[in-house]
Amino acid sequence: MGDLGRVPVGIVGASGYGGVQLVRLLMEHPGVELVYLGGESSAGKSFSDLYPHLGHRVDLKIEPLDLDTIANRCQAVFLSLPNGLAYQMAPTLVAKGCKVLDLSADYRFSNPETYQAWYGGERQDRELATTAVYGLPELYRDRIADAQLVGCAGCYPTASLLALSPLLKQGLVLPETAIIDAKSGTSGGGRQAKTNLLLAEADNTLGAYGVGGRHRHTPEIEQVCSDLAGHEVTVQFTPHLIPMVRGILATVYANLRDPGLVREDLITIFSAFYRASPFVKILPGGIYPQTKWACGTNLCYIGIEVDPRTDRVIVMSAIDNLIKGQAGQALQCLNLMLGMEETLGLPQLSFYP
Amino acid sequence: MGDLGRVPVGIVGASGYGGVQLVRLLMEHPGVELVYLGGESSAGKSFSDLYPHLGHRVDLKIEPLDLDTIANRCQAVFLSLPNGLAYQMAPTLVAKGCKVLDLSADYRFSNPETYQAWYGGERQDRELATTAVYGLPELYRDRIADAQLVGCAGCYPTASLLALSPLLKQGLVLPETAIIDAKSGTSGGGRQAKTNLLLAEADNTLGAYGVGGRHRHTPEIEQVCSDLAGHEVTVQFTPHLIPMVRGILATVYANLRDPGLVREDLITIFSAFYRASPFVKILPGGIYPQTKWACGTNLCYIGIEVDPRTDRVIVMSAIDNLIKGQAGQALQCLNLMLGMEETLGLPQLSFYP
Amino acid sequence: MGDLGRVPVGIVGASGYGGVQLVRLLMEHPGVELVYLGGESSAGKSFSDLYPHLGHRVDLKIEPLDLDTIANRCQAVFLSLPNGLAYQMAPTLVAKGCKVLDLSADYRFSNPETYQAWYGGERQDRELATTAVYGLPELYRDRIADAQLVGCAGCYPTASLLALSPLLKQGLVLPETAIIDAKSGTSGGGRQAKTNLLLAEADNTLGAYGVGGRHRHTPEIEQVCSDLAGHEVTVQFTPHLIPMVRGILATVYANLRDPGLVREDLITIFSAFYRASPFVKILPGGIYPQTKWACGTNLCYIGIEVDPRTDRVIVMSAIDNLIKGQAGQALQCLNLMLGMEETLGLPQLSFYP
Amino acid sequence: MGDLGRVPVGIVGASGYGGVQLVRLLMEHPGVELVYLGGESSAGKSFSDLYPHLGHRVDLKIEPLDLDTIANRCQAVFLSLPNGLAYQMAPTLVAKGCKVLDLSADYRFSNPETYQAWYGGERQDRELATTAVYGLPELYRDRIADAQLVGCAGCYPTASLLALSPLLKQGLVLPETAIIDAKSGTSGGGRQAKTNLLLAEADNTLGAYGVGGRHRHTPEIEQVCSDLAGHEVTVQFTPHLIPMVRGILATVYANLRDPGLVREDLITIFSAFYRASPFVKILPGGIYPQTKWACGTNLCYIGIEVDPRTDRVIVMSAIDNLIKGQAGQALQCLNLMLGMEETLGLPQLSFYP
Repeated sequence: MGDLGRVPVGIVGASGYGGVQLVRLLMEHPGVELVYLGGESSAGKSFSDLYPHLGHRVDLKIEPLDLDTIANRCQAVFLSLPNGLAYQMAPTLVAKGCKVLDLSADYRFSNPETYQAWYGGERQDRELATTAVYGLPELYRDRIADAQLVGCAGCYPTASLLALSPLLKQGLVLPETAIIDAKSGTSGGGRQAKTNLLLAEADNTLGAYGVGGRHRHTPEIEQVCSDLAGHEVTVQFTPHLIPMVRGILATVYANLRDPGLVREDLITIFSAFYRASPFVKILPGGIYPQTKWACGTNLCYIGIEVDPRTDRVIVMSAIDNLIKGQAGQALQCLNLMLGMEETLGLPQLSFYP
Repeated sequence: MGDLGRVPVGIVGASGYGGVQLVRLLMEHPGVELVYLGGESSAGKSFSDLYPHLGHRVDLKIEPLDLDTIANRCQAVFLSLPNGLAYQMAPTLVAKGCKVLDLSADYRFSNPETYQAWYGGERQDRELATTAVYGLPELYRDRIADAQLVGCAGCYPTASLLALSPLLKQGLVLPETAIIDAKSGTSGGGRQAKTNLLLAEADNTLGAYGVGGRHRHTPEIEQVCSDLAGHEVTVQFTPHLIPMVRGILATVYANLRDPGLVREDLITIFSAFYRASPFVKILPGGIYPQTKWACGTNLCYIGIEVDPRTDRVIVMSAIDNLIKGQAGQALQCLNLMLGMEETLGLPQLSFYP
Repeated sequence: MGDLGRVPVGIVGASGYGGVQLVRLLMEHPGVELVYLGGESSAGKSFSDLYPHLGHRVDLKIEPLDLDTIANRCQAVFLSLPNGLAYQMAPTLVAKGCKVLDLSADYRFSNPETYQAWYGGERQDRELATTAVYGLPELYRDRIADAQLVGCAGCYPTASLLALSPLLKQGLVLPETAIIDAKSGTSGGGRQAKTNLLLAEADNTLGAYGVGGRHRHTPEIEQVCSDLAGHEVTVQFTPHLIPMVRGILATVYANLRDPGLVREDLITIFSAFYRASPFVKILPGGIYPQTKWACGTNLCYIGIEVDPRTDRVIVMSAIDNLIKGQAGQALQCLNLMLGMEETLGLPQLSFYP
Repeated sequence: MGDLGRVPVGIVGASGYGGVQLVRLLMEHPGVELVYLGGESSAGKSFSDLYPHLGHRVDLKIEPLDLDTIANRCQAVFLSLPNGLAYQMAPTLVAKGCKVLDLSADYRFSNPETYQAWYGGERQDRELATTAVYGLPELYRDRIADAQLVGCAGCYPTASLLALSPLLKQGLVLPETAIIDAKSGTSGGGRQAKTNLLLAEADNTLGAYGVGGRHRHTPEIEQVCSDLAGHEVTVQFTPHLIPMVRGILATVYANLRDPGLVREDLITIFSAFYRASPFVKILPGGIYPQTKWACGTNLCYIGIEVDPRTDRVIVMSAIDNLIKGQAGQALQCLNLMLGMEETLGLPQLSFYP
């Protein structure tokens, strides 16, 4: 137990954007204390060498990865690493009693074949993997509260599923008509130097990628959609890179089963569905979300429209890809796992403009 | 006839973004000479008062609007005005023998009720309006060549229709499944001061507008789709505002009639469809267009993907909204109307990055 | 006295960017309660009509301006209006016992002729104006604590003066060599529709304005510089508009009196000068500030370099123009005026990237 | 001799931003023919693999570097490589009769010690290096016309020197008071993946680098300033990274020797100085340049202001860093070296906005 009764927590992979969001959020969280930062290539450095602007508040050093140290010092640990590394650490950490929140894809899939098909690798942790809970609190709040291992939802899946879930869960739409046209800022690509993410390349332009179901978030979205619909669901998911730093907008299309439903009906249904979800904000009729509204918060804004000419519903959901789409959601899960208030330490007011 | 055998042309509404593109393009066009700039609020000003960077090449003054003057001096005239003004000028100009290219919506609709329903106003020019040709050369090249009055296609319709036309014309998709998720830079809103288009508002963010068939480009797209399909077609069209100056990307989804078609089939079909269209570039398999590639050119880049899991085709088309989506296309129409080469004076190479 | 012993405060001019920052900051301030929003053109509207993303937290209506109402309900009031309006309200509000924090230029000048020369207008409040304190806490902390009327410092002056003050106060540089090359995001222009601030105009570009001492912040900077130096000082101030929403960087040049001073000396001197100033962060040698580090916070980051070849010191200061440069600074002043801790309710951690 | 009497030219290092600008410009140049593209890491690839948008016009392959091949096929060659490589190729190419235009720093310095001090390396080409001409046509037009080897001016030096030259050449200012506060888009960093140039890092922010005379362009600027002034000159040069792709603005300050000079005097002097320079545009009084005006062109826009309060002149110069600051300027030099018209094939009209 940390200072002042706070829960001691650690971060493995603190140098990336997920890491720095977590550090930022944990500094202001009243119930936990950040006691460990771990990394490989950055081990030995001060965190403020990587992010000088936090030098005045964070004086932790990045330590080399040692699972015993982590388990001894931390009651819970966030793994913020590239795919394929968490499953080499989580079994030991869990065995030593640590609560583990993985921000990679390693523990998101209930079917190990799906993971293997999309991410490869030879895993020895099948048994543990089946105990992992999908970290999207709005859908799996109770199971997360009881979990010791959470595979936090991806950024695109979070925005997509929050828009689709009420429709699928209540059978309001034909699942096979679902199309998710998603748009993300470039910070989703991480703090690694990639030519296509240079400002000189990615600014003033817009393009799709992973078109035709080739993006790895497709099976993740489909897994949850299938769970909600009660049968196998295939969706069309197309991500686009937008010339901005943060934010995801998912524009979701689906055909209504009952063409008599109007916009206000759906606003009522969505509002009821998310009544107990403090971070989902259903917008009034005629208001469509801007990603900027969610920036720097753990909120998801949802706007809903019905086109009576086509019998389609169009749902737009906006999140901050690095907070509700990543670090904030992980912290939301931790709050639940520790029995704290779900909203604790999570910002709900963006700065505008 | 102008200097050196060049065709004398004019621009009414030269102060906006459409106007300045036209001026820029006409300065380098070898077959025409810009002899007249007209405007209302800016009358009396030098063009370089509005756009100082062109002061070294353009020393024209904006003249007050006078239809006689225009018709006397110009063999062809571009009307680059807000909707609802061109139809007050075109009848006189046409009667006096001027070729008229209207960049507004006034002459885009074959059915006057559609125009009236979406744009309002009391028009007295129904007879003339029926002679207007829709200014999208890739579809109506021959009719444009013979026209005296052209209603140039809108920016979103251009990107959308170039992506959809081969599919509809050849009956490859189920028309009612067509969804156009379109994304535009903010210059599409023109050079008028609007709060929502301020950099402080529109940068770092992304949102949809006119959702559910409420955008005025919807009927324009549907008119042409219906023409191509041979029956009334309703499409889903959703525009989004992107934090960049120029460019439109349309991501178009539709269900294939024949699920046996593969990507390469469609690339072949599109390439054949646009064989005689020098500005449409069909990309090789696996390459998806970036709007920046088209910037500063009259090109439309088209990428095609098929998702065999969903039997959908996804077509992405990228244009410069102010050139192929506006001024360049108008000039392309003029080239055809004057019997010149279609590509004359129209840039085909962007600067990158 | 408001709810739970909180101090009731109001905002006049809540619809602009200064207003929305204040609303945002006050929502999370533990010592005050926002009880009044006033406006003219927006009177009668809900605040969430103007800023829908805050609808879930702010349900105040904009009320018409009535000085009696304000004074009755508010112990302190922020005036966030265009220049020339505050001085028509402040005399009444002060007379009724309200603490007044003006965010415009109206109460920034100790010499009424200077205000008159740069801003015009016929003022009847000279006596009151002489009691106003310049709202830059790092320089005038004690006087602000005792003031009833504060003329909060402008955005450029804040960045410029925090960089220059230690140098001038301690006579380290030749004042007449001071050059301030300042760069600001476009939100400094406010939420008014101006053509030159459109994204289409202001993105992808960079230019200076008000060159040669023509910007109104010049006399404001010079007034404080003269106060610090103990004699009349003229500085060179050149503002530039940068294609970004928020942030100001001031790059300040001056010739050292003592060419023997090295960078580390100056870092020591600056650190000492700002020892009691919790929002000023002096960076280690070789680290230069990014405006983004300060975004969403009330911080000012300062980097210092000496060029021994030219005997010049170069100081770079970065702030969020809407927080430390406007609303946050006003709240910092209010904290002092109310005897609360200076940092109360003011963010010190930005989100990055 | 190439097709149709065009001069055959080649590019070594075609994969970077300098290379792609050159390819783009050469495609539309009426007097030359691009016959060779060479590279190391990209050898064997199609140019359109690197830049798919040019696939419809450029079907050249990148060839491995072979100096004999280059000299046999090309009458002139552009070396667009990282610093330190050109001096290993130029001696052979020159010996074989090729005209060489180097875009790196290798041939910019008349004093080999200066190069060595700032760039390192062991060079064996001192004799050849002394024959190289500094590739800034506005200053060294005649010498360039006679040269066989040109070391093209850097991007910052081009903007800085075009602003400073008339002042120094004519002794109008005190050289030691010269301060260049320069701002550049991020494309200046090239097409190499660097973390600090990611959009996620470099967007929405602004910072200085190389402060205090530490940037390698400092000695390059000082060399030419000294040449113009007739004695050793030290200048203050501070580069900043701006959140945009292209463009440089240099804001240059200096104290006038004769405080009686007014703005119009200086406009006259600058206009005369650049009378024979078709790419330099001196703006009318009160107009300050925007970098966007120069984008996609080889122009340099210069605005001039005098501050009578401080006896300083402020000169602002705007260029496209990749055209006038790099590839366009190299082509301008080639035009001179080939005895062609200086402006041939070089764009003078930007697209706006």
